[in-house]
Amino acid sequence: MTDHHNGKPSIHPAMQMVHETMMQGLGQLADYFGYNRAMGELYATLLLNPEPMSLDDLKAQIRKSKASVSMNTRTLEYVGAVKEVWVREDNPSNRKFYEAESDFWKIIAKLLGGRELRDIDLALAVIQDNITLLESARPEMDAENSELAKFYVERMQMIHNFFKFAKLLLTTILEKGSDLDIGEVSRVEIE
Amino acid sequence: MTDHHNGKPSIHPAMQMVHETMMQGLGQLADYFGYNRAMGELYATLLLNPEPMSLDDLKAQIRKSKASVSMNTRTLEYVGAVKEVWVREDNPSNRKFYEAESDFWKIIAKLLGGRELRDIDLALAVIQDNITLLESARPEMDAENSELAKFYVERMQMIHNFFKFAKLLLTTILEKGSDLDIGEVSRVEIE
Repeated sequence: MTDHHNGKPSIHPAMQMVHETMMQGLGQLADYFGYNRAMGELYATLLLNPEPMSLDDLKAQIRKSKASVSMNTRTLEYVGAVKEVWVREDNPSNRKFYEAESDFWKIIAKLLGGRELRDIDLALAVIQDNITLLESARPEMDAENSELAKFYVERMQMIHNFFKFAKLLLTTILEKGSDLDIGEVSRVEIE
Repeated sequence: MTDHHNGKPSIHPAMQMVHETMMQGLGQLADYFGYNRAMGELYATLLLNPEPMSLDDLKAQIRKSKASVSMNTRTLEYVGAVKEVWVREDNPSNRKFYEAESDFWKIIAKLLGGRELRDIDLALAVIQDNITLLESARPEMDAENSELAKFYVERMQMIHNFFKFAKLLLTTILEKGSDLDIGEVSRVEIE
């Protein structure tokens, strides 16, 4: 099979247009989540290409510098959104080839299950430590401080409950998600 | 009641320490979600103060410039995390007073229910339009383009399913969330 995106005249204009909007959309999405536009564009290009692509193939597609393509593809690989694949034929220069990870759960699980979950656990621990500290210091406080400490504990308990809920939601999504056909999910229940 | 955070000598060191870690923590959280550290610090200070505070009170607490305190408090008010309150007494200069919105659901609902939900709806619409466009153009395409169009549609259907799931999750959280005692949530079910 040939590369469908090398601008050869036979490509249908509807395909070109769709490719463009998907690059834009995933570029915005990446930007939105604190990554950058180029990462989204590279991911879209790989996701819409039936064959693996080299860095040169990618550079020809997304109108970014070679350095940008190289660096952002590496970052995509690091976060698990892109994987290197072995291409036997037509590879005399030992170029690396990449394809998009199309199992979105794998990407989400790696993103959420790593950084996000660790950060929530850390927040829960800090708040719990603070509550314990104030509870144990209250007996030695004067009346005014003791009253304020009670207020602090109430407020921190509210934040603690909120993070606990966020953690439950996250772990449920991570546990259930990979077993589900995401197109078939019809109900989310919170109780 | 007097202001508990004006540095008067009677404040207990444990309170000072807890106040510091909460400012740091909420500062990081705000930063993380694409806002800035000062917003998180201002919110923490208001959340841990039993009485409304003026911009001058806030400035005395968080060691930021008057302009920064003023601008970030306004942004907090705009996103619904802080509200202006009426203070009768001791207010000859007509200063404005603020308190933290302590109903986290109200804040989350305003953040998620606005920008995020609109963006998901837009993404779903763009993808659906693209699928429709390719489906209707396929009959006029040559064999190679038609095959590629089929591949595009499959990939876009995957992304569509993913956004549909994200929307279901978001709307469920928004609908159920405000009725729940968040500290009591024990189960999230996805099916």
